Amino acid sequence: MTSQAPQRTVDFWFDFSSTYSYLSVMRIEEAAARRGVQVRWKPFLLGPIFRAAGWETSPFLLHKAKGDYMWKDMARQCRKAGLPWRQPTRFPRPALLPLRVALLGADQPWIGDYCRRTMSLNFAEDRDIDTPEVVAQVLDGLGLPAQDLIDAARQEAHKARLRTQTEAAQALGIFGAPTFFVGDEMYWGDDRLDDALGECGGVVP
Amino acid sequence: MTSQAPQRTVDFWFDFSSTYSYLSVMRIEEAAARRGVQVRWKPFLLGPIFRAAGWETSPFLLHKAKGDYMWKDMARQCRKAGLPWRQPTRFPRPALLPLRVALLGADQPWIGDYCRRTMSLNFAEDRDIDTPEVVAQVLDGLGLPAQDLIDAARQEAHKARLRTQTEAAQALGIFGAPTFFVGDEMYWGDDRLDDALGECGGVVP
Repeated sequence: MTSQAPQRTVDFWFDFSSTYSYLSVMRIEEAAARRGVQVRWKPFLLGPIFRAAGWETSPFLLHKAKGDYMWKDMARQCRKAGLPWRQPTRFPRPALLPLRVALLGADQPWIGDYCRRTMSLNFAEDRDIDTPEVVAQVLDGLGLPAQDLIDAARQEAHKARLRTQTEAAQALGIFGAPTFFVGDEMYWGDDRLDDALGECGGVVP
Repeated sequence: MTSQAPQRTVDFWFDFSSTYSYLSVMRIEEAAARRGVQVRWKPFLLGPIFRAAGWETSPFLLHKAKGDYMWKDMARQCRKAGLPWRQPTRFPRPALLPLRVALLGADQPWIGDYCRRTMSLNFAEDRDIDTPEVVAQVLDGLGLPAQDLIDAARQEAHKARLRTQTEAAQALGIFGAPTFFVGDEMYWGDDRLDDALGECGGVVP
């Protein structure tokens, strides 16, 4: 696909408010590990990306026919993947604090568990995820120092990091989530996760 | 998925101007036949559907980042499917006459060959497909009475049939192409063709 040597890493851009990111968050770590590929977790904010495209909110709300279909498709895709699913009563669900914490832990061994637990709360348990109480509950459950992490996530310098990460997403041409990068090859949507991992040159089981 | 008995037919809604419809047109007949499923070809016009959503043209033109990505994705998907690909110099390419002829032949044994040949002209040979000469060339190549079919396709009553078909698409909630229906279950995009055929209850080879 490219003239470069095979990449052994995939950059995974996601937002906790994104339905199709739920599908990828729940399976990427295992799917990548099976191929010997490392995941670089890249939390970002979809909202500013949508606003830059001229949309005030999710295109699934602005375009009713597409939104109606998306809910049916998500239910089917979750059934197919064996994932629990409950249509959130609020969409898109704010996820600023959980995303800031995800950025804080992006290189930590707990990032996968943290993201899966947060996504499950949103899309399987219909819980509000953008509160310190819920984020603390997730972190506590992983045996992590919840209050320290939440305090760090709320520092102005760290808030700026998430804005910078979102600007980086836009500069890369990212227009939705999930998006995967293997080197400079971009793949959009959970439907392209396997292609992205294949591009890594990983061993297919 | 539904409480109905398995459907043995898939309704295939497509427009010759649609890039992702190219992928499905080229493989649906063989993929369906392998599962003992019958394809009902449903040509329609995407333009009025887009205009009803408030878009003056293809969303791939209105949203540059998404459009740029789509061309890369199409090149990759064609490579993966072993399909020839040349990015059309005109997009979306008008396809009114070829679609009228497709509607005329939707129940005929030549519909699959006709659609594949027309799609190849657009997406592999970068040819203008919306002229009587090119449509006649395709029909001649299939041993069909080209002039008779083109004359019939240009009758006012038949033009109205394509408009009615497009209104039916909109009434079904169709917002893009390709779209598949199995009973009342809708599947959008070439990425869902296999799911749609699976829903038919066909035997998987």
